[in-house]
Order: sequence, then C-alpha cells, then structure tokens
Amino acid sequence: MIIRQIHVTPVAFRDPPLLNAAGVHEPWALRTIVEVVTDEGLTGLGETYGDLVHLGKVRECAQALIGLDVHALNTMYARISAIVGNVVNDRHGLTGVANKEKSIDRVFSPFEVACLDIRGKATGVPVVDLLGGKVRDAVPYSAYLFYKWAAHPGEDPDRFGAALDEAGIVEQARLLIDEYGFESIKLKGGVYPPDQEIAAIQALHEAFPGVPLRLDPNAAWTVETSIRVAHELDGALQYLEDPTPEIAGMAQVAAAVPMPLATNMCVVTPEHLPPATASHAIGVLLLDHHYWGGLVRSSHIAAMCDAFGLAMSMHSNSHLGISLAAMTHLAAATPNLTFACDTHTPWQDGQDVVKPGALTFVNGAVPVPAGPGLGIELDRDALAVMNEQYEKCGIVARDDTTYMQRFNPTFSARRPRW
Amino acid sequence: MIIRQIHVTPVAFRDPPLLNAAGVHEPWALRTIVEVVTDEGLTGLGETYGDLVHLGKVRECAQALIGLDVHALNTMYARISAIVGNVVNDRHGLTGVANKEKSIDRVFSPFEVACLDIRGKATGVPVVDLLGGKVRDAVPYSAYLFYKWAAHPGEDPDRFGAALDEAGIVEQARLLIDEYGFESIKLKGGVYPPDQEIAAIQALHEAFPGVPLRLDPNAAWTVETSIRVAHELDGALQYLEDPTPEIAGMAQVAAAVPMPLATNMCVVTPEHLPPATASHAIGVLLLDHHYWGGLVRSSHIAAMCDAFGLAMSMHSNSHLGISLAAMTHLAAATPNLTFACDTHTPWQDGQDVVKPGALTFVNGAVPVPAGPGLGIELDRDALAVMNEQYEKCGIVARDDTTYMQRFNPTFSARRPRW
Repeated sequence: MIIRQIHVTPVAFRDPPLLNAAGVHEPWALRTIVEVVTDEGLTGLGETYGDLVHLGKVRECAQALIGLDVHALNTMYARISAIVGNVVNDRHGLTGVANKEKSIDRVFSPFEVACLDIRGKATGVPVVDLLGGKVRDAVPYSAYLFYKWAAHPGEDPDRFGAALDEAGIVEQARLLIDEYGFESIKLKGGVYPPDQEIAAIQALHEAFPGVPLRLDPNAAWTVETSIRVAHELDGALQYLEDPTPEIAGMAQVAAAVPMPLATNMCVVTPEHLPPATASHAIGVLLLDHHYWGGLVRSSHIAAMCDAFGLAMSMHSNSHLGISLAAMTHLAAATPNLTFACDTHTPWQDGQDVVKPGALTFVNGAVPVPAGPGLGIELDRDALAVMNEQYEKCGIVARDDTTYMQRFNPTFSARRPRW
Repeated sequence: MIIRQIHVTPVAFRDPPLLNAAGVHEPWALRTIVEVVTDEGLTGLGETYGDLVHLGKVRECAQALIGLDVHALNTMYARISAIVGNVVNDRHGLTGVANKEKSIDRVFSPFEVACLDIRGKATGVPVVDLLGGKVRDAVPYSAYLFYKWAAHPGEDPDRFGAALDEAGIVEQARLLIDEYGFESIKLKGGVYPPDQEIAAIQALHEAFPGVPLRLDPNAAWTVETSIRVAHELDGALQYLEDPTPEIAGMAQVAAAVPMPLATNMCVVTPEHLPPATASHAIGVLLLDHHYWGGLVRSSHIAAMCDAFGLAMSMHSNSHLGISLAAMTHLAAATPNLTFACDTHTPWQDGQDVVKPGALTFVNGAVPVPAGPGLGIELDRDALAVMNEQYEKCGIVARDDTTYMQRFNPTFSARRPRW
C-alpha cells in the first residue's frame, strides 16, 4: 500500500469568544486536513493544527512521503525529522514549550493517523483494533467550560451566551450537560483573579454534587497562589491542571497540595518525562496525539505513565471530527486512560468536515466508531466551504493575545499573572 | 479473524553443557510452541519457555482466548491477568526476580506474537511492518561465548569442544565468528573467579582487536568485585552486564565504573524502571519480548528507554527459530536498539521447528524475513520429533544448579559468589 498522493487542506470554522489565560479565541479557528491516498485508491484522514508555519511544514513533509508504504512509520518519522529541523512554535503557548522533538511529533501525527486509517480500512478493522483493541465501548468526555463573552465584538450573541461569573459558568455547564450528557466538568481558568475562579468551582460543586471537577488556569498562577487555591478547593477538585509554569514549579505545588496535578504544558515531549517523574511534579498526564506524535507514539507514552504511576486524561484544542475520531480510538484502546477526556466539540456546534452520524455523544461518551479505519467519512462539500472560509477569514495563526488586546489594550498574557 | 484453536506443544532439543553462574545447561533445553488458528484457517506461531509450571499456565490461558479476535490484545492480556494470579517462577533465576506482572507478560507473549504473525499474513506484510517498519534490513547478533565442558558427562564430545580457559574461549570465538560472521562478542561469565574471566576478556580483546566485547557474570560479584573488574577491563568492554545483584547494587557499581552497565536481571518488568532510572543503575537495557509481554509491549519499553536515555540490546535464552524470527522483526523495527543482540542459535546447531531457509546469518546479522507475518513456516515433522524428545527426556523444568551438583556436589549458585 504505497502512498501516491497527499492532499493538505487548511480549513477555518467559526469559534466562539472563549476566554483563557492567553486572551480570547478569535472568530475563526484553523485546522489542517490531511488526506493520504494509496496506489490501491484507499484514502486515510488526519487532522492537525492550522497555523501557517505548521501548515507549511506539513505541506513540505507531505511531498517527502510520496512512494512510502503506509506501514513504514519509522521511515516517515525519520524523513520528517530531517525536514523539521527548526522549531515550529505556536504563539499562544497553551500547550507548553516548543522544541525540536515536539515539532517533529506535531508534523508526523496527521500522517500517522491517516496511515492507520488506511490500514484499518484495508484490513476491515477499526483503528482501535490496530492499537490493541477496545477496553471500553465508549470514551467519556468532560463538559469543557469557558468563561466567554456573549458574542465576538460587533456580532450578534451566539447561542451559548455570556459566562462572566459563577452563575454564567453554572448555566453553561447545564446547557452542555443537557445536550451531551457529560458526567465530568472542566473549567478553563486563568481568566479572572483566583478567588473568582474558586467561587466558580464551588458553585459548580454545589450545583452538580458528585460530578468530578477540574480547573485549568494554564499556568497563570505563582507557586504560592497555586497552593492557596488548591487548599481552598480541597474536596471539590478531581485534579488541578497546570496551576503554575514549568516542572520545577509544578513539583513545588504538587508536594504541598491535596489533589493530583495534571499537565498538558510542562510535560509535552518525551524528554520532559525524566525530570517530571524524578521530581513528582505531576499525577496526571493529558495525552494529545496531535503533539505526542500520533496514536502509536501516544500509546508508548501511556505505557510509560503506567510504569511510572501517572494517571491519564486527554487534552484538546479546537478540533473537528477527524481528531475526535482519532482521540476516541486511542482512548478506547488505552487501559490506563481512566479520566474523562477533554474535547472542544460542543463549541464547534455542528460544524465539521466529517459526514454526520459516525460520532455521537451518549451520556457524555462517544461510542467508538465501528466502521473500518477511523470509521468516518470526509464531507467534501463541507471541506470546500471550510477551505474557502480559511482563504477569506484573514487569520493565518492562532493569536488569542493580540485579538484580546484589540478590545483591551492593556491585556497581558504574562504567566504567572497572579 | 476469530481464534478457533490454539495448539500448545512442549518440545525438547539437545543443548551443550554451557556453564554459567547457576550451574550448567542440561542435555535437553525445553521450549513451548504455540500455534493459534483462526476461523479463516490462518495460523500464527509463538514460542516461549518450556518449564512445566509455565507450560501449564500457557495451556490454561490458551483455552480462555478461544473466540477472541486476533486484534483484541488488551482483552487477551486482561484474561491472562485474571488467570495468572500467582507467580510463575523459574529456578535458575538468570532473568531476574519473578513477580506477578512479569508472569503475566511471559504467558501473554507467545499468544501476542502468534496474533501478529496472523495479522501479518492476513495483510500480506511482515511483522516488522506492524511494529513501525524496518529501520535496518538485517539485525546484528553477537557471538555468545560460554565456558563449557567438552561433553555432557558420559557422552561423546560435541563439535564445539571444551572451553575452560581463555585459550578455549578464544578458540570458541573463532569457530562462531568463522561460521556466522559475528562482529560483536559476549562472554557468559560468573563461572570462574573474576581474574580468570578478566584474562579471557583480555585474550579476546587481543585476538579480536576492535570487536566490541561484553561480559555477563549474572550477578555473581559483589559491588566491590564488580568495581575492581570493571576498572581492569576499562577500554576492553563495550558494556558490563549484570555484574552484581539488584538495582541498588548496580547503581553503586554504575557510579564508580567507566563503562555502561547492562541488565536483563535487575530491570525485567515495568515497575523496575522508575527505581532504575532514578538511581542511574543501568545504561543499557536488554530487551526480551518473552518476558516483556510480546512485541508491542517491548516497543513501549524501547520508547521508555529512548525517553530515559537508556541504550538497548536484546537478551536471549536457549531458543528456536520462531523466537529468532520474532526477535529479528522486533529489533529491525526498534530505532534505538543499536547494540548487537544476543542469541543462543549457534548452540542449537541446526535443530529447529522452523523449516530451513527463512533465517540466515550474513556477517553475523539476520536479514529480516521478507514473507508475510513472521516469514517462517513450522516444520511439523521436526515439531513431532522434538515433542517426542520432550516426552522422553525426563526434564520438566530447567535446573542448571541441580544438574551441576550431580557432578560437583559442593557447587553453590549463591549470588554474589565472589
């Protein structure tokens, strides 16, 4: 099964004004859709970041993979390593530091997923079966709450409404839980002073007793603030995600607080695991196949977490259905990924490049698509529309900070901030 | 591809009187051959230890896997975990401590290999392609030297002759290198007082200048002896394998010696990795899919070694061609397995359950079999003969120590001994 063509298509889709420590989501979110086509006419799908520098690397690497067999993942990785010599960064910094290995892993990921999609289709088995088989029939996701404005400035309010205080957050949780059935809740923090976010978690804890809660301020706090907040939220939080920057800071916090710390910022590439495990900086790793080098490499990381006593959840950026399918296959095949995963799916509000039907939420969980490969089908009309949106929207790289500063010129994304 | 039948066949084959810290190899070595048969009539092969307790567990677990799909490795592992509740030990202790996880991994391994063989055959690709694809076309092995008697007591000398001093060891190295083309040499030590083994390594270093050398005394030395020997062999050894028992002892030695320490004894299950990496006890891990839970789990371990800065080689017990094929596919797909692997193949001197031709040595390396799956075929006549040998040989568990004590009643396998 030789790779004959690879199509790389940037897309843009509407994104609500979700607030975070870096600023606010712009009106359009970007992704890159990768289609790998074999000599036998099988097509595999992958999805990755849409920032222009990354898109350029994905395009450049795609050319270098023509002629390879879809099983030759080691060779693909080596070829991509040879091209991605410099660091492909993102401006928002919400997935931690960039380094060469992570940059390679990010570019490699959509090609690997597409090749697994093809191999599943060729064998007639779902991708989950190429990863060891299902340990769960459906993958639980959490309600991913954001402080948000009612609308992007100058636009009509979106259907989610504003969430600028604890009442708004509780209301948003009800909306997402009513629609999706989520049984865990994550609040994106780092937006308001910590006491306000403590109040929001306490309000959620009261409104949804027994529902596991997490808070993720994206390293907006000092070590001291992190320790104070953690103690105030003892008993309310399942885990606290990235309260403070860097492994050393996380280790200081971890040693002093009652709940596990999770991360998708201070441990984002294999070289971070030795210092993080040595210093007991984290208790939960948030897996993300988009920057951990695809599904198989993510399964290696899951095995490491198992060996080193780390629990697991899954991280998400704004994404479409190809990513949701890949995340679901991976999580379903990962025995020790026992915490509900993050997803931005509700915020895309039905926009997708995938034909409807294959991906559904039942009680907050996505049943593993049963079809061969990823079990999804590309909606070419939707892809064309979203590509046109990309061409027109004028955004070429996610930049929450600059967008925020258009409305709040004194805004600073400095971390830690409090 | 549903598993309909599993055949489990114990076999015995002639083994020369190879000396080690535990005693001496008995006249017959035992293995268990596993054949997994699917509803579509595809057969996959696996090979594992032949000791009776282990054989019993393999048989018991085989029954529990009937009806599963060959992709359902997570479910297989869970079912085997539920059965292998107690510890399946081996008496010689040459592959380190036994614990529950290692026992499960040992039983799981042949079934996993057989399922990968089937999946390769069904897809028309070699197993190496299911593991990420080739990073090398042929896998280098080392000349695995043993002190040995000329013959088992009461028998005629075998063709390898005696090797009871440095001259005999050098002669043995010449024989194996002439026949196989090996470009690295490993000496099994722990047999004679350390000064004698130092002399053997020095003789090899002189006779084969530039050829990488390793010495493996199977933890027969104290920390102090290990440090002394290591300094005397500075410049001659590529690495020193398991000089002393336990992670703590190895860490003491590692901190004081000039060459890396390797192990297949103190790190033999994932739970050993955190203490071993924290204490910098080892520099090289010897992978062995027979006790690391098959090929995919071994690839997880390889990824961990990469993340934690450990180099890799591969361990071997007396084995047949199914194991050699599996080892070769795994090593060929593992980028960071850069040291030549161990193999006992020369000592089996052509005896095999695999039809000739698929596995050859070229300049000490085995080209990856190109056929689908493992690329080998079971020789049913040979299997029948070896099974008959098993029934007649009277050995049900490897016990080098008791066999040695028949001829040397005062022999003690105490470790450390010197």
